[in-house]
Amino acid sequence: MNEQQFASDNYAGVCPEAWEAMQKANQGSAVAYGDDEWTALASDGFRRLFNIDCEVFFVFNGTAANSLALASLCQSYHSVICSAAAHIETDECGAPEFFSNGSKLLVAPAVDGKLTPEAIRTLALSRTDIHFPKPRVVTITQPTETGLVYSIDEIKAISAVCKEFNLKLHMDGARFAHACEFLACEPADISWKAGVDVLCFGGTKNGMAVGEAVLFFDKALAEDFDYRCKQAGQLASKMRFLAAPWVGMLESGAWLKNAQHANRAARFLAEQLSTIAEVKLMFPVQANGVFLQAETSVLDNLRAKGWRFYTFIGGGARFMFAWDADLARVQQLADDIKAAVSEQAV
Amino acid sequence: MNEQQFASDNYAGVCPEAWEAMQKANQGSAVAYGDDEWTALASDGFRRLFNIDCEVFFVFNGTAANSLALASLCQSYHSVICSAAAHIETDECGAPEFFSNGSKLLVAPAVDGKLTPEAIRTLALSRTDIHFPKPRVVTITQPTETGLVYSIDEIKAISAVCKEFNLKLHMDGARFAHACEFLACEPADISWKAGVDVLCFGGTKNGMAVGEAVLFFDKALAEDFDYRCKQAGQLASKMRFLAAPWVGMLESGAWLKNAQHANRAARFLAEQLSTIAEVKLMFPVQANGVFLQAETSVLDNLRAKGWRFYTFIGGGARFMFAWDADLARVQQLADDIKAAVSEQAV
Amino acid sequence: MNEQQFASDNYAGVCPEAWEAMQKANQGSAVAYGDDEWTALASDGFRRLFNIDCEVFFVFNGTAANSLALASLCQSYHSVICSAAAHIETDECGAPEFFSNGSKLLVAPAVDGKLTPEAIRTLALSRTDIHFPKPRVVTITQPTETGLVYSIDEIKAISAVCKEFNLKLHMDGARFAHACEFLACEPADISWKAGVDVLCFGGTKNGMAVGEAVLFFDKALAEDFDYRCKQAGQLASKMRFLAAPWVGMLESGAWLKNAQHANRAARFLAEQLSTIAEVKLMFPVQANGVFLQAETSVLDNLRAKGWRFYTFIGGGARFMFAWDADLARVQQLADDIKAAVSEQAV
Amino acid sequence: MNEQQFASDNYAGVCPEAWEAMQKANQGSAVAYGDDEWTALASDGFRRLFNIDCEVFFVFNGTAANSLALASLCQSYHSVICSAAAHIETDECGAPEFFSNGSKLLVAPAVDGKLTPEAIRTLALSRTDIHFPKPRVVTITQPTETGLVYSIDEIKAISAVCKEFNLKLHMDGARFAHACEFLACEPADISWKAGVDVLCFGGTKNGMAVGEAVLFFDKALAEDFDYRCKQAGQLASKMRFLAAPWVGMLESGAWLKNAQHANRAARFLAEQLSTIAEVKLMFPVQANGVFLQAETSVLDNLRAKGWRFYTFIGGGARFMFAWDADLARVQQLADDIKAAVSEQAV
Repeated sequence: MNEQQFASDNYAGVCPEAWEAMQKANQGSAVAYGDDEWTALASDGFRRLFNIDCEVFFVFNGTAANSLALASLCQSYHSVICSAAAHIETDECGAPEFFSNGSKLLVAPAVDGKLTPEAIRTLALSRTDIHFPKPRVVTITQPTETGLVYSIDEIKAISAVCKEFNLKLHMDGARFAHACEFLACEPADISWKAGVDVLCFGGTKNGMAVGEAVLFFDKALAEDFDYRCKQAGQLASKMRFLAAPWVGMLESGAWLKNAQHANRAARFLAEQLSTIAEVKLMFPVQANGVFLQAETSVLDNLRAKGWRFYTFIGGGARFMFAWDADLARVQQLADDIKAAVSEQAV
Repeated sequence: MNEQQFASDNYAGVCPEAWEAMQKANQGSAVAYGDDEWTALASDGFRRLFNIDCEVFFVFNGTAANSLALASLCQSYHSVICSAAAHIETDECGAPEFFSNGSKLLVAPAVDGKLTPEAIRTLALSRTDIHFPKPRVVTITQPTETGLVYSIDEIKAISAVCKEFNLKLHMDGARFAHACEFLACEPADISWKAGVDVLCFGGTKNGMAVGEAVLFFDKALAEDFDYRCKQAGQLASKMRFLAAPWVGMLESGAWLKNAQHANRAARFLAEQLSTIAEVKLMFPVQANGVFLQAETSVLDNLRAKGWRFYTFIGGGARFMFAWDADLARVQQLADDIKAAVSEQAV
Repeated sequence: MNEQQFASDNYAGVCPEAWEAMQKANQGSAVAYGDDEWTALASDGFRRLFNIDCEVFFVFNGTAANSLALASLCQSYHSVICSAAAHIETDECGAPEFFSNGSKLLVAPAVDGKLTPEAIRTLALSRTDIHFPKPRVVTITQPTETGLVYSIDEIKAISAVCKEFNLKLHMDGARFAHACEFLACEPADISWKAGVDVLCFGGTKNGMAVGEAVLFFDKALAEDFDYRCKQAGQLASKMRFLAAPWVGMLESGAWLKNAQHANRAARFLAEQLSTIAEVKLMFPVQANGVFLQAETSVLDNLRAKGWRFYTFIGGGARFMFAWDADLARVQQLADDIKAAVSEQAV
Repeated sequence: MNEQQFASDNYAGVCPEAWEAMQKANQGSAVAYGDDEWTALASDGFRRLFNIDCEVFFVFNGTAANSLALASLCQSYHSVICSAAAHIETDECGAPEFFSNGSKLLVAPAVDGKLTPEAIRTLALSRTDIHFPKPRVVTITQPTETGLVYSIDEIKAISAVCKEFNLKLHMDGARFAHACEFLACEPADISWKAGVDVLCFGGTKNGMAVGEAVLFFDKALAEDFDYRCKQAGQLASKMRFLAAPWVGMLESGAWLKNAQHANRAARFLAEQLSTIAEVKLMFPVQANGVFLQAETSVLDNLRAKGWRFYTFIGGGARFMFAWDADLARVQQLADDIKAAVSEQAV
């Protein structure tokens, strides 16, 4: 077993609550393709959690969840407005374009990764002729890829612009739980009550082996989405193993507890480093990620000390924490960063 | 817990060997997206099993495995020759057409589900003008959707026609292990040694929760296939959970043992019914499926007795067995069929 | 200049009425991309001809017209019900699948090329699970690829089944004018009044250089179709040259006169051959095509005499007539067929 | 007839040489789908003009020409490097993404519209992981959308970077003739001899009604491109009408003469305005476009005087000239601009 690393929240394994539910589900026969009890239970769990009778689908990963959701909201000649930092733009290898057969991403420059009503307005108005794809959807990542959380009011303001321009609002919630935890709000508050039409609720980064949930709050938008999933290779035959972990997470409250722990680990690292002038936070720490700005030599030294991490736009370093973050190991990371800084200073 | 049903081999759960490997893999941090030890181990396991340095990829399900493999072998204006009974034609909701952006399936009529060299030749020659998609790939399912196993010689004969017409040969091996067991041959014998270019090796139906392996025996054909998987939403972030079960299955031999048990259960049912004139086998039982021809009233009666099953082309009933088939329950099924027949006779 | 051939109605050039309109349109500047007067005139011409305020689009060819229309009616996981003889199935190289990103064609066997309400019903009911593409559209070719014309009642009966199963009705009218001429009916009678939602009205085979019109009788279905055309490479920059020929054809009545002449030529050939027992009509001659059943040796002899023609399913020969068919040359064809037959007889 | 406008070179009609060839081609029967004499003649004409045995295809418009060519060079998970001003990025409504089923455009910022070797290098190196589409093609527009012409050396330098990174080089030559004229070079010099793999040679903007030629200098890259065209709705049935104008243009030299006239008109306008300080050229005038920077009120005034024009990035005005530009009318435009400026000054 390797020492814990914080390069990605995908490095973590499966949390006990998800595991136990899978184990329970692994008893005897179950009907395939989602007509089983676990799938029904998980779907109802989401409806209860969001306090709305929404349509719920389970797919394998975030790339598919986001791309299928977007494809269901637009045709190939439509476009999707997103931030330049959006995962669908930077890290899904053209998946949204593939699933939609060509929908273009209209990318808004974003200093901190957040999309703003003004940026949406600008892009929505930039072209209105048939020689350019027609905007149909806005997508925001909650929290952003930079670890920032949209407030309820920010989402409502974005939703208002969407309505003005007849755009649907999609939320990439790969770490949705972490946003709920930070805001201490109900899931509904930052989703359908704030104007979100479709939410991709992430399970993998929050303690599951595999699997994301796609929630359509406007049920009409979900028409034939089951066919879409099937055709796109996203219908699990043994669906119970995608659904059961959700039951475990939702019933036990682990979905929130895991996020809480991950967020706390991030804050812990940030606090540890708050006294070192040589290392700066690129963004306020609101969710489970810490983005550090430091000299290249400091980062190189840190790598030499055995730490893995992604480097971020502009030369920063990203550390992501999951449900399993060992605070002693976070402390060790903080100590090593301090050491790297002081070694550098010499 | 429900009583065991044999409507599908997807009704079974995860076998102990796969489960334990997953459990072992669920320790500490692991690098994401396949750069972990389990993925390396599983890939090497396949290379050893097939005795060739092939390229190995792990995807979520069979629809994706087959569709991505076929898409890598042809362009949108090419076509894929398959049997009318092929899963890609009958049960993947247009997935091959979707992933390839339009490749047409050229469907050969097939009484028993098998594709023949003659049928391939006929389709390959039927059209050679640009107004019809150009054949580029032949795909066969081993065993077929009707439970028949292609012999080594049959595959070689098909491969010979493929070479003659410059067609690649793809094998849908959703139940590949069951074919190996029936033929008592090495995996290599009915794959690359017999001329197969790409094999989709099924894990789900053979005891895993989720996951299929795509094996390219001609490594050149695998160029950029990792990008293709990523874009199509088939790259697992926590890849260890797709790979580890394979390690468990391959190292323990469960991949073959499970198939053996499933095949045996099918033969057991067939034997039990061999004395009843009112129920006929639609196809010889070679793998893990039994296809029965019986009066509709008999089948209705069987359903009334609580059994689930799919009805097959021409009014038959399909029963599929997995690694977990309880022979006592199979006996019960046989008894209920007999009872249904005799109740019918009255 | 080569001697006239009747292998295809695409062998003919541009008729005088279309040519003169193009010539007139070729004066001075015109706004690009359809914002010109010719395009407005042509669109209005269609609205007058069909006596309805429909949406009209001009595209380059029939493959695109049909494929774009079908793509606008269904998603990738939907299917299109058509006859086995349908051009979209047999001669568009997978274009419908390409433009729709994977919609499957559900093909009804058809002895004479016509689709029937019964065949539609059978296909619509054959599968209703998510493992098979969901039927969304029915397409019929008027006249069929076998030269038969659907009567008003036949179309209404098909439309009734469509409504029953919530299917849209598309008409491939590559030779729509020829059907109008045969039935001596108004264009509206066999299109929107009979339940057709979208019609592709052919220009190329009826005397134009290039260009088909797509008519949406239900304007809501045309939403963003202009974007669809643009993205798919079907928006002509110098649109006047696609539109003007239509103005010439519609205003002069050449659209019907050309079809009349072509139909007459076909009937003329059929009459000439009616006395020869050795040559049989495969289908009644209703439009501009004659399909002959004759011994291979007769057909070979005919080829040796310099005639070009396509051979049809089952060994027949197809002759197609256009606006420019020279009746003396048709007579010569008839004579040569007779000669081939009698030479054969010796 | 409207007064001549210079908003687009697509406003012009068909030049006499193209028209006469079409007229000549409109005699009697001709075999369909490109197996006719005109298509052979046009193809040979291109081979002679470029002094190389290249593969030549004729498609309907520039959107299709570029998108099909790019799709033939890359898979859906690949990317295309282009300038931010490239037509495929700004004015083809997502066509490249559609035809390729999702290839992403990697857009290099470009002050003057030109792509540079440095920009290509930067984009080629920016990401090399599977989470981002892999660069496979570079495309340049010759002349650029800003009216600038790449020199032979500039193209060679770009080609060198392409080879370094294993990228194919595509040229969007919607106004290729205008570049040849400006550089007074052979077509080969700025295409295959400089490293271009595929060229889309524009006919529409240079005096044809419709039609572009796609030239593959590396014939291996053209494999099955005819199928690709057919499937994508870009195979003309009456191909002679796409091919014949090219014969007329190439044999008469009109292809170059037209460009010469258009370029001259642009220079003429630029010269007329060179003395007015209030109006600045945004870019040197090298081809057939003039891009003016002027106060909004001046441009509004010009519109009020009846002139049509597109406004360009940053508030400029674009004027494009074609083979038919009436120099007296250009003079009038110059006069009106001067008048607008002086009226503004008051």
